[in-house]
Amino acid sequence: MVVNPTPLPTASRSSRADHARRFADLLRQQIHAESFAERGLPSEPELAAEFGVSRNAVRDGLALLKQEGLIDRAPRVGTHVAQRKYDHGLDALLGLKETLKGHGEVRNDVRAAVEIAPPPAVARRLQLEPGEPAVYIERVRYLGDLPLSLDLTYLVPDIGAEILGRDLETNDVFALIEEVCGQPLGSADLAIESVNADAHSAANLQTPEGAALLLLERLTRLVDGRPVDLEYIRMRGDRITMRSNLVRRPDITNWELTS
Amino acid sequence: MVVNPTPLPTASRSSRADHARRFADLLRQQIHAESFAERGLPSEPELAAEFGVSRNAVRDGLALLKQEGLIDRAPRVGTHVAQRKYDHGLDALLGLKETLKGHGEVRNDVRAAVEIAPPPAVARRLQLEPGEPAVYIERVRYLGDLPLSLDLTYLVPDIGAEILGRDLETNDVFALIEEVCGQPLGSADLAIESVNADAHSAANLQTPEGAALLLLERLTRLVDGRPVDLEYIRMRGDRITMRSNLVRRPDITNWELTS
Repeated sequence: MVVNPTPLPTASRSSRADHARRFADLLRQQIHAESFAERGLPSEPELAAEFGVSRNAVRDGLALLKQEGLIDRAPRVGTHVAQRKYDHGLDALLGLKETLKGHGEVRNDVRAAVEIAPPPAVARRLQLEPGEPAVYIERVRYLGDLPLSLDLTYLVPDIGAEILGRDLETNDVFALIEEVCGQPLGSADLAIESVNADAHSAANLQTPEGAALLLLERLTRLVDGRPVDLEYIRMRGDRITMRSNLVRRPDITNWELTS
Repeated sequence: MVVNPTPLPTASRSSRADHARRFADLLRQQIHAESFAERGLPSEPELAAEFGVSRNAVRDGLALLKQEGLIDRAPRVGTHVAQRKYDHGLDALLGLKETLKGHGEVRNDVRAAVEIAPPPAVARRLQLEPGEPAVYIERVRYLGDLPLSLDLTYLVPDIGAEILGRDLETNDVFALIEEVCGQPLGSADLAIESVNADAHSAANLQTPEGAALLLLERLTRLVDGRPVDLEYIRMRGDRITMRSNLVRRPDITNWELTS
């Protein structure tokens, strides 16, 4: 059934910038998936041949990836991967330390860890009674020497008070909540946004002002449904990729579809 | 068990910028969740009292949200929500039109729709035989008059050739694949990154150069596991929020944990 045939585009709509973007997107994925670290990236002519675009489009595409902080380029040295990005799993509820297990040591610079009188916006989300305090924790989280995220955390007072006495410099808050409660967390509502870094967040994350950040808001509940942990997490966009596997029909198993 | 008690922070570590960020994060969530559209936002003194921060921190926080494109501020007119953000669900594999159902008409400006000789990076992901073509589609997607995303799509040749004859201006590619194949899609591998818009992408999305974008890479498979659709999607960070519910232990049901 041909509903409304789309006319083929005229060549003029595909500019050098279009070709550069197409090339950059494909090469970005290869940089994430493969190790160019030791041998460096192929030369401009090699890339032009492989991706079927002009040398100019290759040069523009490499400039895009350099701007994203993915690659370094220098005369005579060539083009190299600047620093790898780390995957943050989205298929289960994971803390940063858990998701980066095997990649190095996560340590946290604790900027604040205090009991506060929560604003109504926090009290409502954590279902606190009027007058109940909350616990506020703010940390910059590093993988080795690399700052990855700036985390603002609001906790319910009973769990939060216990956590203030724990080792906040090396642990995920998730692990501490589970240690304090003696039971695993249940689930979380997650919102993911892309924002430009304000000057102060940028300084904390050692990234330029205006750099693209992943901003996560996450409200985490115990298994019984009680909300206990409200977080605002800014992750460096040039160092973290969120990854997930999505199913088209979560209500139907593949077995039912294929059998 | 107190492992390593964290000293309480000195007051000097919480600057006006810290308070502005905390306030902005909480207000951002309220803007997403509530309708300030008709009555406008509370006044600066009201916000300062509600959030327990100084007038200066309120002013700085509002400036952050204005910079993000969430609010407008003008003398005498006051502070209003500039334009709402739209939620893109991450709990199931959804096209833009499906996820925005009820919010208005999604229409697509088709910038390219052609058969191509795919570069090896595409052929590998789509498991194409040597010499097999692919179909390339590029579209800017609008909700009404608002450009939301720029989508680069690579399709396997058998399905892609059929789709070139369909109505690409009003449909999700997902819906067209399912129509052509007569079966629902299976699942997709998704990567979410935050990047600054290059000049050309920014112009297509009518947003400033450098604006924070959500960049999705998505490889979608049929139920039998065959990869058929590789997409690179740039979404305006100021207009889209990705939302999901994550479970701590996907292998264990809540029933097993509580019983």
